[in-house]
Amino acid sequence: MTGWLEKPAGFSLLPDGTPASPSGFRASSASAGLKKKGLDVALLTSDLPACAAAAFTRNKVKAAPVLLSMKHIRNPVKGILINAKYANSFTGPEGMRDAVLLLKILALEMNYDYKSFLTASTGIIGQRIPVEKVKAVIPLLVKKLSANDKSAPRAIMTTDTVPKNCAVRFKIGEKTVTIGSMAKGSGMIAPNMATMLCFITTDAAISGALLRTALRNAVQGSFNRITVDGDTSTNDSVFLLSNRMAGNPVIRKKGPEYSLFEKALSWVCRNMALKIIMDGEGATKLVDITVSGARSAEDAEKGARTVACSPLVKTAFFGQDLNWGRIVNALGYSGMALDPSKISLAINHIPLLSKSRYLKENEKKCSVAIKGRTFGIQIDVHLGRHDARVLTTDLSYDYVKINGDYRS
Amino acid sequence: MTGWLEKPAGFSLLPDGTPASPSGFRASSASAGLKKKGLDVALLTSDLPACAAAAFTRNKVKAAPVLLSMKHIRNPVKGILINAKYANSFTGPEGMRDAVLLLKILALEMNYDYKSFLTASTGIIGQRIPVEKVKAVIPLLVKKLSANDKSAPRAIMTTDTVPKNCAVRFKIGEKTVTIGSMAKGSGMIAPNMATMLCFITTDAAISGALLRTALRNAVQGSFNRITVDGDTSTNDSVFLLSNRMAGNPVIRKKGPEYSLFEKALSWVCRNMALKIIMDGEGATKLVDITVSGARSAEDAEKGARTVACSPLVKTAFFGQDLNWGRIVNALGYSGMALDPSKISLAINHIPLLSKSRYLKENEKKCSVAIKGRTFGIQIDVHLGRHDARVLTTDLSYDYVKINGDYRS
Repeated sequence: MTGWLEKPAGFSLLPDGTPASPSGFRASSASAGLKKKGLDVALLTSDLPACAAAAFTRNKVKAAPVLLSMKHIRNPVKGILINAKYANSFTGPEGMRDAVLLLKILALEMNYDYKSFLTASTGIIGQRIPVEKVKAVIPLLVKKLSANDKSAPRAIMTTDTVPKNCAVRFKIGEKTVTIGSMAKGSGMIAPNMATMLCFITTDAAISGALLRTALRNAVQGSFNRITVDGDTSTNDSVFLLSNRMAGNPVIRKKGPEYSLFEKALSWVCRNMALKIIMDGEGATKLVDITVSGARSAEDAEKGARTVACSPLVKTAFFGQDLNWGRIVNALGYSGMALDPSKISLAINHIPLLSKSRYLKENEKKCSVAIKGRTFGIQIDVHLGRHDARVLTTDLSYDYVKINGDYRS
Repeated sequence: MTGWLEKPAGFSLLPDGTPASPSGFRASSASAGLKKKGLDVALLTSDLPACAAAAFTRNKVKAAPVLLSMKHIRNPVKGILINAKYANSFTGPEGMRDAVLLLKILALEMNYDYKSFLTASTGIIGQRIPVEKVKAVIPLLVKKLSANDKSAPRAIMTTDTVPKNCAVRFKIGEKTVTIGSMAKGSGMIAPNMATMLCFITTDAAISGALLRTALRNAVQGSFNRITVDGDTSTNDSVFLLSNRMAGNPVIRKKGPEYSLFEKALSWVCRNMALKIIMDGEGATKLVDITVSGARSAEDAEKGARTVACSPLVKTAFFGQDLNWGRIVNALGYSGMALDPSKISLAINHIPLLSKSRYLKENEKKCSVAIKGRTFGIQIDVHLGRHDARVLTTDLSYDYVKINGDYRS
């Protein structure tokens, strides 16, 4: 996991930080009765309308809340309404009407234009949200909004076993700025539930264009680098809101301030991605796979992703079996340019294959390494200068159990 | 499974048919001590050198026997030497020397040019074949060659739970011709073992060019349409030998005789592919997935294959859960052109989604259908005229168990 969570100098981590941590953000949650019990609806708002950026799923089947938020994302954003249990995906024109209706009711309650609101849902695909239940709790959600809220990260959980949130604080010039976040996600799709969602807030002042660039780069190096089962859901979304309330001069061009902001945002995204994968469905291992020496970036990506998604590789991780042949096999069918005689492979940087030569003397050490909860696999194909990294889990009985269960 | 095993008129199935069934073919097997116990080496020969065609793995890491057979495939072929337990893959120049040496010893024993022999291996990747053990049984293999051999299909098994073989007989003009076959394969890669191998023989007389065309078409509609875990091994091979001993006039152009031959060969390949997938590692279900109405053949293929490989779809099959949302989700990220509002989906031809509208009234019937050992899923995306079909299995506890086990 080298470098993944190395905290940049000068950054402090807020204990219990949530998206309500930066100045001017508030959150709340309620039980609308969507889940059998517990919190299932959350609201996140900004006192001053925020500039927003987002990364949405590339799945061609996009849920209604994704399509609606895509329309509103360029407006100043007052808040985001989130529900668990129903994905509102593949629900047709009715599903879109439901999403619009809920935002309109929220907008009326908060006395704001409804186009200033975003929305996100996670849960069963193909079933409509029980709108009346959500409507009924909207006044309560608005009333409970608080800068000290700690409940929202729990309300958005589905098969997650732990709530996921964090916040970091650092300085831009004289001003202290904060980035807060919460996320949910356990399988790319959980049993009936769907999706990885992440909500990030900041009081840092930064132009909309740079906000979007920073988010794109941060997502690329974090959420786009993890896989539990290779399934991309219809609802995956990462939202970033900036309300500029920290009072720093607005960052309008790339430079030291921008770099600092992107670094902090990237760290938050990597941390949240790690929390998601550590909570991967049935996972007993976290494996950090790097492919270097590829002829192109695309090739490196293909190799790392194919190894990370291979059921045979993942079951071998689960069995703690040093079956490196399966890794070589996966590289071979990944579609990347490959010269088998040049493949090197190491476990936790202990060389096991050196340009296809098997280093028997390191077998024992490598066998011990893969018994850890977390380990790394470093592959070098010696054909070029490109590399890629993907974090993955093992494939366990529990993954089959969780996902094979009835939708009861 | 509509049509998959519909036997063309006039074809008869030979009980216990093996590749030794067509005139002039012989087979034998022996225990060389590669496996802990039982048969592990087989030999298949033709009295008259045969014209050969083959389909080899597209994995860029190719095992030594694959590379060697690729070199010899255009020569008249006297025989094929096959071993289980060791894949002789990723074994470097030494592995190639081992394969050459064994064929040379066999050639001496049979008094033929060694370039007239092919070879195939299946088993652990990255470990060399214990050459001395195989050498020791070659004289016995040659001595035991018999047209009545039934043992070879068992000798080539790895994690297979049953031997796989079949033969069909039909007429070309006045002459009776036979196609025989045996195969092994259970996972694309089994625990340590590797590979799907298939050996087909025929006494039909057909030109080399048409033999290759017929095999390419037959493989495309059979072995290339099944998936257990999406992993393509380094050793996958299908061999087809024709020794022309049936005495029919050589088929030299496309016409009724060629059609008949291709039809019979395709049936044999589909039958063998079905045997392999029915014996899929840990499989409790066989699912026949069709995607039609796609904009291009490539799109249809992407859609069918992505649904067939999705761990979430496969675990839902295992749980007998009518979780059609996961199927729609997989189509969405498959990369195929898609209009979600036009997706129709049926189980065993019982419509469940009609252009995205959910047919609640058929839910019960569809829920019953997926409780069968075998069922079909018909998807129509209503964008064009192309279709594709893939047979897959479910993903069960036993798959994880079989593949998570130590290589002991």
